[in-house]
Amino acid sequence: MNKITLLIHCKDRSNIIASVTNFIAKEGGNIVYIDQHVDREQNIFFMRLESEFTIGNFTTDSFKESFKNTLADEFEMKWRIYSSENKPKMALFISKYDHCLYDLLGRYNSGELNLEIPFIISNHLDLKPIADSFKIPFHHIPVTKDTKNEAENKQLELLEQYNIDFIVLARYMQIVSGKLINKYPNKIINIHHSFLPAFVGAKPYHSAYKRGVKIIGATSHYVTEELDAGPIIEQDVAHVSHTHSIKDLIAKGRDLEKIVLANAVKLHTDRKVMVYNNKTVIFS
Amino acid sequence: MNKITLLIHCKDRSNIIASVTNFIAKEGGNIVYIDQHVDREQNIFFMRLESEFTIGNFTTDSFKESFKNTLADEFEMKWRIYSSENKPKMALFISKYDHCLYDLLGRYNSGELNLEIPFIISNHLDLKPIADSFKIPFHHIPVTKDTKNEAENKQLELLEQYNIDFIVLARYMQIVSGKLINKYPNKIINIHHSFLPAFVGAKPYHSAYKRGVKIIGATSHYVTEELDAGPIIEQDVAHVSHTHSIKDLIAKGRDLEKIVLANAVKLHTDRKVMVYNNKTVIFS
Amino acid sequence: MNKITLLIHCKDRSNIIASVTNFIAKEGGNIVYIDQHVDREQNIFFMRLESEFTIGNFTTDSFKESFKNTLADEFEMKWRIYSSENKPKMALFISKYDHCLYDLLGRYNSGELNLEIPFIISNHLDLKPIADSFKIPFHHIPVTKDTKNEAENKQLELLEQYNIDFIVLARYMQIVSGKLINKYPNKIINIHHSFLPAFVGAKPYHSAYKRGVKIIGATSHYVTEELDAGPIIEQDVAHVSHTHSIKDLIAKGRDLEKIVLANAVKLHTDRKVMVYNNKTVIFS
Amino acid sequence: MNKITLLIHCKDRSNIIASVTNFIAKEGGNIVYIDQHVDREQNIFFMRLESEFTIGNFTTDSFKESFKNTLADEFEMKWRIYSSENKPKMALFISKYDHCLYDLLGRYNSGELNLEIPFIISNHLDLKPIADSFKIPFHHIPVTKDTKNEAENKQLELLEQYNIDFIVLARYMQIVSGKLINKYPNKIINIHHSFLPAFVGAKPYHSAYKRGVKIIGATSHYVTEELDAGPIIEQDVAHVSHTHSIKDLIAKGRDLEKIVLANAVKLHTDRKVMVYNNKTVIFS
Repeated sequence: MNKITLLIHCKDRSNIIASVTNFIAKEGGNIVYIDQHVDREQNIFFMRLESEFTIGNFTTDSFKESFKNTLADEFEMKWRIYSSENKPKMALFISKYDHCLYDLLGRYNSGELNLEIPFIISNHLDLKPIADSFKIPFHHIPVTKDTKNEAENKQLELLEQYNIDFIVLARYMQIVSGKLINKYPNKIINIHHSFLPAFVGAKPYHSAYKRGVKIIGATSHYVTEELDAGPIIEQDVAHVSHTHSIKDLIAKGRDLEKIVLANAVKLHTDRKVMVYNNKTVIFS
Repeated sequence: MNKITLLIHCKDRSNIIASVTNFIAKEGGNIVYIDQHVDREQNIFFMRLESEFTIGNFTTDSFKESFKNTLADEFEMKWRIYSSENKPKMALFISKYDHCLYDLLGRYNSGELNLEIPFIISNHLDLKPIADSFKIPFHHIPVTKDTKNEAENKQLELLEQYNIDFIVLARYMQIVSGKLINKYPNKIINIHHSFLPAFVGAKPYHSAYKRGVKIIGATSHYVTEELDAGPIIEQDVAHVSHTHSIKDLIAKGRDLEKIVLANAVKLHTDRKVMVYNNKTVIFS
Repeated sequence: MNKITLLIHCKDRSNIIASVTNFIAKEGGNIVYIDQHVDREQNIFFMRLESEFTIGNFTTDSFKESFKNTLADEFEMKWRIYSSENKPKMALFISKYDHCLYDLLGRYNSGELNLEIPFIISNHLDLKPIADSFKIPFHHIPVTKDTKNEAENKQLELLEQYNIDFIVLARYMQIVSGKLINKYPNKIINIHHSFLPAFVGAKPYHSAYKRGVKIIGATSHYVTEELDAGPIIEQDVAHVSHTHSIKDLIAKGRDLEKIVLANAVKLHTDRKVMVYNNKTVIFS
Repeated sequence: MNKITLLIHCKDRSNIIASVTNFIAKEGGNIVYIDQHVDREQNIFFMRLESEFTIGNFTTDSFKESFKNTLADEFEMKWRIYSSENKPKMALFISKYDHCLYDLLGRYNSGELNLEIPFIISNHLDLKPIADSFKIPFHHIPVTKDTKNEAENKQLELLEQYNIDFIVLARYMQIVSGKLINKYPNKIINIHHSFLPAFVGAKPYHSAYKRGVKIIGATSHYVTEELDAGPIIEQDVAHVSHTHSIKDLIAKGRDLEKIVLANAVKLHTDRKVMVYNNKTVIFS
């Protein structure tokens, strides 16, 4: 039994849904999940579809070839097909904060995440013992102003060597350069510790405290070249009051950050996120 | 341009989605929305589909006829088709509490609700001035132990006379009899002032206070013969603390009740709710 | 039985709490509620205290005089004393949106709000029928670029004539001038339709839609001269998704706006809000 | 500088607050935090107070003696005094689920929790490696029907040997006997995977799925002899839909459970919880 997930977007027009479902039927597939969305402002059609194929000689490659030459061409679709056989490979970038790391590795360990973590990269050694206790290779790549370029080359080398599919910045605290971003477009997930677009940049909890907000938040988004301005995948908030010091906000925020980041990682690895126009369509 | 909403459920098997989308295409329809769900425990397939028909000689009736004789028969579907031309007619049953009434009528007045309210029924006269100010006919049908049956007959008469599609009990405070329920199966929406299944029955805020819960809730559900045990449409909760008296819980609860009930009414009138096995599938 | 609410803030130092509670005891009062807060960054002490006095010759005025000449002087306190006998008088400023109006008047009517509404001011006539149905005097004061100053004078005249204590802008949609703000410092409550500081200014739902946020919010704050930058009283949020159009966000937002505004009004009239440093301390 | 936390409850009557604050002042203390609550139904007064003492010859013991013989006696108070010098000692009881364990140990490691964990007890060996990686002694005490009594004696021995202050059942999955409960009244914290009082007992996620609820929850409470009926410390909920399988509910619930349990542990160790009448007063 082969199972594929198909993600499509294209200009909206009549009969796309019927055409696609027909195509799948002809190829011998049984659709087990279908969801679609039309952005009426932009006139763009989005679809996510899961199909099972029992026919012996089905291969993802031949399906791709067939799809590409017929429907994809006809409707000028942008599309991706994922086989359920391949677990996405995630690289984890960390620094000194451990809460997202513990949370992700705890979930990974218990089988909650459908992915592989070939290695962890950090610019500091502080969290190496945690990586060790989970038996995940840890690469210490220090980053200074002078070595930033060199460090990034080392990172890229590792990413390529292990065929990494996507990167998670689990409170990495470093600005990632355009070189990396362009190599992994909509494939670098960051967790920002505010409800974006409020409090872009450094020290958002300090800014939240100063403004006297009654809610704080966390936002997981894909990294783009503009700081904290990439497509938002997931957000959540918590209520706070005047009794909370900055330290309290940071502590409360940690719980938001780890849950929001974990949810974003799950949505991404389940192929439920489509990006366009700097926004996301989440088929959940 | 005709627009229909089609709701289907049947035993799950291969190729349902492709068959339905094909059928719609052959009938000249363009699917603008499709959503589906499979209950893997019960092996039941659910689908909600919106389709537009531009062909001049399309009628909902002929479509129904055709659908019934082909697909519906083949897959042994249970199905409903709604034309967007028909606004559902809602009867509002109230008693002495006004918060849900103000909220629903305010929304109705501002055009937020896609429905008609031919009349309001109450067992008390207290809220008549509100009905009057919104210019909605108000029928006072008192209910006592002795007159319960007679009162219900009057209610049924009005419901039939105005071709009512569904009933909303906006804190009606009376138990509705099986006669009414059987006449309007999954068409009587109640708001219960607790997060069901906690605190079934009378005085849930008192029970919540006594138990010392830290959250209170409200639940909108379809009425079935078992008290507060019907299919849940919508729920929401609010955090409370030891500082809240029973009176405070009631006040906080009112805000939950009116929002939860309004949301349930909208889901119902948008044909987004399917009921099976005493549960709901909400295509939102 | 007289009951007063005392609000104090001053530089933090030792023994303030004991001194105040002692003073109340000597005056014959029984403290029924006490809450305090210290802002450790600014070193400011805040206190809210409710006390009952049964002694026959107690008057709020003599208590004030005594408090002023002793404790208030010694600790250089800023303070306010409210007698529970006086209901605050609220002026309601509205424009064309009716959801906050219906919500506030519904609560007012059912006795949920501890205040009086001597009149409603609007720059449009659209909502006059609602004011009429609740039997609240409605003053139509149109505002154009040319008549803005004159309109404000008329408003001020009414506010003074009726001894208005505070103003609520229930989606008034006009920028209030410094003249009014200075006359009612921390006494003009606005509802802004975003989770501030995100989306300051006009059309926040459009901006939220464009940015692709996964939560929208509403913020109630005191009006200061800087637009949407005054002390925040209350905030709440709701989850949204790519399926929500701008119109959907606006509809969902209405429910947030009315609840958040009503909560802010209640906190204000219950004398639970203290303002300093452009932030609020909420003793709830 | 000595700092104490004082928790009081007694029958409500006049001048308690003034009497206590006076007493503290006379003893040379400076009150830095005061909060109080009156249960008007039961007529019980509750107070939590933090005070700093700079006088050289202050001791918690002499303060206790003095307080006991004067105020406590006069007002017939039930009271507890904690010195900030003593970190509470927590015993962790676990079984096979690791999410609460990882979460608590991660927080413990990063210094977020103000407590000590002398040891972990489990009836299974599965999670020993996690305890080892955090370098916390792990005691394997298997529990079977036949050995239950013997196992409990071993537990009690360890608890006494290490002067354990309170016990946390982090998904321990065993019913704790009356012997243990009576020895640690309101000192055994459990996490139940439902919003109590809904779904008491085993398999609450299965029951929630069956009932078709739209919210699931988690509840942390003190253990009493009646199953899942003890005083509730903290609750939280998450929205779910028909798309969630039981497995999904369990996964979503894990995130609730770990946050709710961690919050309850923090409230308990910060001495912010008072219990009476099978309910809690939470001074947060």
